[in-house]
Amino acid sequence: MIVEHGGNAAALAEAFGYSLDDCLDFSANINPLGLSPRLRDCLLDALDDALVHYPDSVYRHSREALGDHHGLDSSQVLLGNGAVELFYDLARFFHPQTLLTLSPTFMEYEKAFAQVQTETKRIVLEAPDYSWSFEQLLPALETLAAGDAVLICNPNNPTGSLSRRSELEKLASFLQEREMVLIVDEAFMDFLEDERDFSFTYSLKDFPNAVVVRSLTKFYAIPGLRLGYALSCHPACFEAVEGSRAPWSVNALADKAVPALLGDRDYQEATRQWLRAEQAFLYQGLSAVAQLRPVRPSVNYIFFEYLGPLDLRQELRKRKIFIRSCQNYPNLTDRHYRVAIRSRQENEQLLAALTAVLMKEADDARD
Amino acid sequence: MIVEHGGNAAALAEAFGYSLDDCLDFSANINPLGLSPRLRDCLLDALDDALVHYPDSVYRHSREALGDHHGLDSSQVLLGNGAVELFYDLARFFHPQTLLTLSPTFMEYEKAFAQVQTETKRIVLEAPDYSWSFEQLLPALETLAAGDAVLICNPNNPTGSLSRRSELEKLASFLQEREMVLIVDEAFMDFLEDERDFSFTYSLKDFPNAVVVRSLTKFYAIPGLRLGYALSCHPACFEAVEGSRAPWSVNALADKAVPALLGDRDYQEATRQWLRAEQAFLYQGLSAVAQLRPVRPSVNYIFFEYLGPLDLRQELRKRKIFIRSCQNYPNLTDRHYRVAIRSRQENEQLLAALTAVLMKEADDARD
Repeated sequence: MIVEHGGNAAALAEAFGYSLDDCLDFSANINPLGLSPRLRDCLLDALDDALVHYPDSVYRHSREALGDHHGLDSSQVLLGNGAVELFYDLARFFHPQTLLTLSPTFMEYEKAFAQVQTETKRIVLEAPDYSWSFEQLLPALETLAAGDAVLICNPNNPTGSLSRRSELEKLASFLQEREMVLIVDEAFMDFLEDERDFSFTYSLKDFPNAVVVRSLTKFYAIPGLRLGYALSCHPACFEAVEGSRAPWSVNALADKAVPALLGDRDYQEATRQWLRAEQAFLYQGLSAVAQLRPVRPSVNYIFFEYLGPLDLRQELRKRKIFIRSCQNYPNLTDRHYRVAIRSRQENEQLLAALTAVLMKEADDARD
Repeated sequence: MIVEHGGNAAALAEAFGYSLDDCLDFSANINPLGLSPRLRDCLLDALDDALVHYPDSVYRHSREALGDHHGLDSSQVLLGNGAVELFYDLARFFHPQTLLTLSPTFMEYEKAFAQVQTETKRIVLEAPDYSWSFEQLLPALETLAAGDAVLICNPNNPTGSLSRRSELEKLASFLQEREMVLIVDEAFMDFLEDERDFSFTYSLKDFPNAVVVRSLTKFYAIPGLRLGYALSCHPACFEAVEGSRAPWSVNALADKAVPALLGDRDYQEATRQWLRAEQAFLYQGLSAVAQLRPVRPSVNYIFFEYLGPLDLRQELRKRKIFIRSCQNYPNLTDRHYRVAIRSRQENEQLLAALTAVLMKEADDARD
C-alpha cells in the first residue's frame, strides 16, 4: 500500500513538462520562508565535518537540546528520521489490537499500524469544523480494550481543527485508567502563536501512557532533511524502540541541525509574523469565493470544500499550481482540498487562479 | 539490544576529554579521502534547492542511475537509509524461521532478524583466514526448511575474507531449488579493483531468490549521509517493502548524491590508487609485528589476532588512536581487532603507536 501525499511537485512538474521554477506548490505544508540562514551555515559546517563520520548513535546533543526545549529529560526524547517513521516504530512497540483515530486525518497512521496487523477504527468527524469532544468519543472509547491506542492529530491534518489540551487530558485520564495508550501527532504545533493551551507536551509528566510526536520539517522548511522526534514519560518505550531499530537512522546533518533550529529566534519570529498576516489574508480570500467553504485555519494550511463540479486540482495544475486533493482520504471526497499558506505574492496568485477557474466555470454554465 | 559498533570517535573523544581533531579513528572503515569535491558541489546545490522539498517518494532518478550502473531495471533497485536499515526491511519481508550466517560477521543481521523472531544459526569459521566452501556449509544447509534464509557478507566484515562468485552461485542454486533465500551484503565490494569474479550482482538475473545489499557510505566516505541500496530480481520483494515502510525514508541530499557519486571517476580512481599502496603497506607493517596475526585484507580494513596480554584498544586510546575491538562479536575474543586502512601518515602513526605499546609490554615483562 503506497499512500499518495502532497509535496511531489518535482515529479509532477516533470510529468507535465513544466519547469519546477515556474510552478507554485500549495500541496505541501512547508514554511515558505525556506531554509534559515542560520541553519544553512550550520549545514555547511556539517558538510565538511559531520558527513564523513557516523552519526552519534544515541544522538546525545540533539536529545539534550530537545529535552531542554520541552522541560523533559533527554531520555524522554526519541529522534526520528522524519516524524512519520516514528509512527511505524510506535506501532511495533505498542502493537495494539485496535487503533482509534478521528477521520479525516493523516493517512500514514493507519498504514503504520497495519504493518503490525492493528485494526483501525475511525470516528468520523463532521463539517463545518471537524471538531470533537471527549464526551462525543466516549461510546467508541468504551469498546476498546487494555493495550489499545488512540491517535489524535492536533492540529489535525488536513482539516486544521485544533483541540484544547484540557480535552486531551480528559481522554488521557480515561485511557490511563484502562491501560490504553494515547499518541498525539503535533507535527504542526510550532506554528501556533502560543501552544500552552493546546500542546500535550505540557501534560506528559502526568500521563506516562502518552507519546507526543513532533516534526521539525514543516516549521523549519526541511522536509528533504527528514527530522522528527517523540516525547514521552513512558518508562520503557523509547529504550525499546532504540534497541530494536536500525542504528544511525537519523542522518548526521539532521542531528547537527537540532540545536541550531531550536535557538533560531529570528526565524521563529519571522515565521509567526508571516503567518499572522497570511493566514488571515488567504482565509478571507478563500471565504470570499462563493463556491468554497474553508475551515478556519489554526496553522499554516487551509482545508476547504468546493461546491462546484470541476476538478480543481486538475484545473489549477494546468496553471502550474499544485494543490492537495483530499479525495484519497477516507470520509472525504473529490470536493475536498487542502492548500498551504504561502507568501503574499503566491497567495494572491492562487486566489487569482481560483477566481479565474471558477469564473470560467460560471461562464461555461451560462453558455 | 543495542549493538556497539566502531565509528563513534566524536563521543569517545568527548568522553576522554580529547579534541576530536587530535584523534585518529581506525575504528570505522571509511575512505580517508573524505568527501569528493564533486559530491560536495552536488550537496551544496541541493542544500538550497532540495531540502525545502520532500524527497521524490519513489526515488526515480537514483534508482535509474543505480539500475544502469548494475545493468538492471530500476524496479530491481531499492534505496535505503543506509544499508543497515535494508536488513530490517528484508527481515520483515522474508520473515524466515531460521537465518544461517557465517560467524564472525556483522552483528546487525542477527539483531535485524531477531525483530521478526527469526532464529539465527551460526556456522563458525576458523582462523587463519575464515574462509568457507559450499561443501563445508552443506550439512548446515540440509537442516534448513523452505522460506529460510542464508546471509553472507562478502567481503566479510570484520575478517575481510572474500568469497568467489562461483561459490555463491553453488549456494544460490541449492537455495533456489529448496525455495530458500540468499542475501549477500556487499557493503565493501566497491573497494575491489575488479569485482566481476566476486560480486553476486552479476548473477542476480539467474537467481530471483537472491538479494544483494550495497552501501555507498564506506567507499564515498558519507556515513553521516546514510545511503545504501539493494538489488534483486525477486518479483515481489521491493514493491512490498516500499509499500510497507514509512515514506521518504531516504533524505533528499542522499537521493541527489547518487548520480553524482556513480559518475565520479576521479574519486574512484584516486581511491583505488590509495588503497593499492596502503593496503600492502599496512598489512606488511602489521605482519612484521611479532605478536600480531593479521588476515590478508581484501578491501579497506585489516582484521588481526593479538597474542599478548594487553587491551590494545585501551592502550591505543591513551594515545588518541581508536581501533575496533572485536570482543563483542560472537566467536571472537578480546584478542581480536579490526583497523581501517587510512592515509600513509596515519597508517605510520598507527604502526608506531602499536610498536611502542608492544615494546613497553616486552619491557614490562622483562622487569
